[in-house]
Amino acid sequence: MVGVDPGLTATGYAVLEAANGSLRVHECGCARSTSTQPLEARLSAIHDELGGVLGRWRPAVTVLEGLYAEYGFPRTAIVMGHVRGVICLAAAQHRSRVMEVSPAEVKSALTGSGRASKEQIRRAVTRMLRLKEPPASEHVCDALALAVVGAVREGASLGRS
Amino acid sequence: MVGVDPGLTATGYAVLEAANGSLRVHECGCARSTSTQPLEARLSAIHDELGGVLGRWRPAVTVLEGLYAEYGFPRTAIVMGHVRGVICLAAAQHRSRVMEVSPAEVKSALTGSGRASKEQIRRAVTRMLRLKEPPASEHVCDALALAVVGAVREGASLGRS
Repeated sequence: MVGVDPGLTATGYAVLEAANGSLRVHECGCARSTSTQPLEARLSAIHDELGGVLGRWRPAVTVLEGLYAEYGFPRTAIVMGHVRGVICLAAAQHRSRVMEVSPAEVKSALTGSGRASKEQIRRAVTRMLRLKEPPASEHVCDALALAVVGAVREGASLGRS
Repeated sequence: MVGVDPGLTATGYAVLEAANGSLRVHECGCARSTSTQPLEARLSAIHDELGGVLGRWRPAVTVLEGLYAEYGFPRTAIVMGHVRGVICLAAAQHRSRVMEVSPAEVKSALTGSGRASKEQIRRAVTRMLRLKEPPASEHVCDALALAVVGAVREGASLGRS
């Protein structure tokens, strides 16, 4: 299971494995690109780095937030679409099935409320994954949250207590 | 020079070469995907087919319409962003520089008017490329038009008369 939070500057990813009623974080981080590069080079950098992660861990499922984003900034959303495109491609190339979850489902699965704040999500992720400290990056936190929800959907049983 | 008109169902492409004051069409067509497949498989099909074209002809430049599209259907625009993402990636992988042109520049370069109709563009493309008949597909026609504009920008001299 890998959760991915697409972004052109930084794409968060988190590889989890569910075993014995708990989740283990194998690897998490950000695939980054440099803003001085042309768009195609930036997409290539993110595609290749995420491809490396998929190649190392071979997750059966890649979890992405569905296309439920708000469209306040259409150009930003379309650029995000480019990044999402190369992530979906990397998943296909590594035979990882793309699973889409909604933001409400993420919030609900992690906190019991579909209207949880970012801070509540951060605390829930830290607790559920028994992290020593909260994820430093918001992108990584979102990727961890997506991976947890993917694992729950795939049948992992996790106490929220 | 390859012009590309991104679409999930059909991505038009057209490979042109400028020589001796005229343009020669090497190959044009549509990379297609099947609507019953998951998004990632569709993106993979388009990426791979376009990659084949780029591999065969090794165009120095890939011409795309810039992000000037109207945002009447944000979801459609974001899905188009996915396709554009894998096309940019294929260009990067084949060391083809991505050039963006605006719809107004396409119209102006082909007809002398930035407000030309689709039919005027079709006639201009047919005449300028000395095609035996107009392009059957709108996607191919748009790709040919983009490639012509790319060639003109790169210095090809073409009589519009």
